[in-house]
Amino acid sequence: MELYNYFRSSASYRVRIGLALKGLAYDYKPVHLPKNEQTGESYMAVSASRLVPLLKDGDTVLTQSLAILEYLDETHPEPPLLPADPVARARVRAIAMDIACEIHPLNNLRVLRYLVGPMKLSEDDKNRWYRHWVETGLEVVERQLAARPGTYCHGDTPTLADVCLVPQIFNAQRFDCRLDHVPHVMRVFEACMKLDAFEQTRPERCPDAA
Amino acid sequence: MELYNYFRSSASYRVRIGLALKGLAYDYKPVHLPKNEQTGESYMAVSASRLVPLLKDGDTVLTQSLAILEYLDETHPEPPLLPADPVARARVRAIAMDIACEIHPLNNLRVLRYLVGPMKLSEDDKNRWYRHWVETGLEVVERQLAARPGTYCHGDTPTLADVCLVPQIFNAQRFDCRLDHVPHVMRVFEACMKLDAFEQTRPERCPDAA
Repeated sequence: MELYNYFRSSASYRVRIGLALKGLAYDYKPVHLPKNEQTGESYMAVSASRLVPLLKDGDTVLTQSLAILEYLDETHPEPPLLPADPVARARVRAIAMDIACEIHPLNNLRVLRYLVGPMKLSEDDKNRWYRHWVETGLEVVERQLAARPGTYCHGDTPTLADVCLVPQIFNAQRFDCRLDHVPHVMRVFEACMKLDAFEQTRPERCPDAA
Repeated sequence: MELYNYFRSSASYRVRIGLALKGLAYDYKPVHLPKNEQTGESYMAVSASRLVPLLKDGDTVLTQSLAILEYLDETHPEPPLLPADPVARARVRAIAMDIACEIHPLNNLRVLRYLVGPMKLSEDDKNRWYRHWVETGLEVVERQLAARPGTYCHGDTPTLADVCLVPQIFNAQRFDCRLDHVPHVMRVFEACMKLDAFEQTRPERCPDAA
């Protein structure tokens, strides 16, 4: 497999964690977003979306991090990223989407660029925007975790929810977001970071992080 | 089942379509977002996320539209919202997420309010923002559909991708977005609107649309 990836992209980090949890090897293909390599000809030939991450599995091209992770879970079921019970699966997916659909899309590089470019926001307002969505969005996750505490987001093994939570916390820390109001979130984050699959794929350890 | 819903919320419309495709009956519980009922005490007692849609199935509370739709597909498999093959499932989910993770989160009511409130954007800039993400986001969907044309987003039966696409087009039309650059998207939209499940759940037909 080949993973097209940018070390600081949190959606990329999700897929790195998923591949590591499954013990799957891959070639790392860096796509440098600040240099706009995602809209360069060589990447556009591979990717219809011009976003990272993208996973090539043989001739199959897969996009959207959560769709990629569901695919990996269906084609390499062990260890599972989702519980077996439909209600539990729905809870895990909802926590994952509280991050992937409510927080992260608002704080993408392309979104931040549009705010300070065409929308003419100041750097200060851009940072306020960033922190607002992280801090309020994580409150939703906190309430989900507080309602049913476990070692990880759901129970005693990492799931799709943890795979989304950890990269979001890395972003939050990079932008100096407040995190003292989400103790369950931070407890789960710290539990995850004790696992090799999360630790060894962290942004600074990527080949393109230098 | 009980569906907590706002007629103009496109994530709510997704779940209405899914329930209709499955032929499942439900009580419609309106939550008026412009009046901030989602942060009122009675709704907060039900919902940790304070977002719509929310589905109650007996005592089970389900949030996040795509997680709800996957749950419905797992608990009521016929007719399926996802194909059987993992590669095809990944394609359908990726198209759904090109909408649900890349377009819609940027144009939520709460996001638009934050832009004109704390970020002090003008109404004109807010509308430019809205159209920018719809018009560029739909280009990604267009390329996906053009690469493998079918009656619907994937093949000859509606899937999770169509369930996301149709509500996004309703929003696009409401905000006068350009749509002539996405002919495959519009062809699929028109095919979907010939189906009762999409037509009879459209925003204007909801009990709270009056």
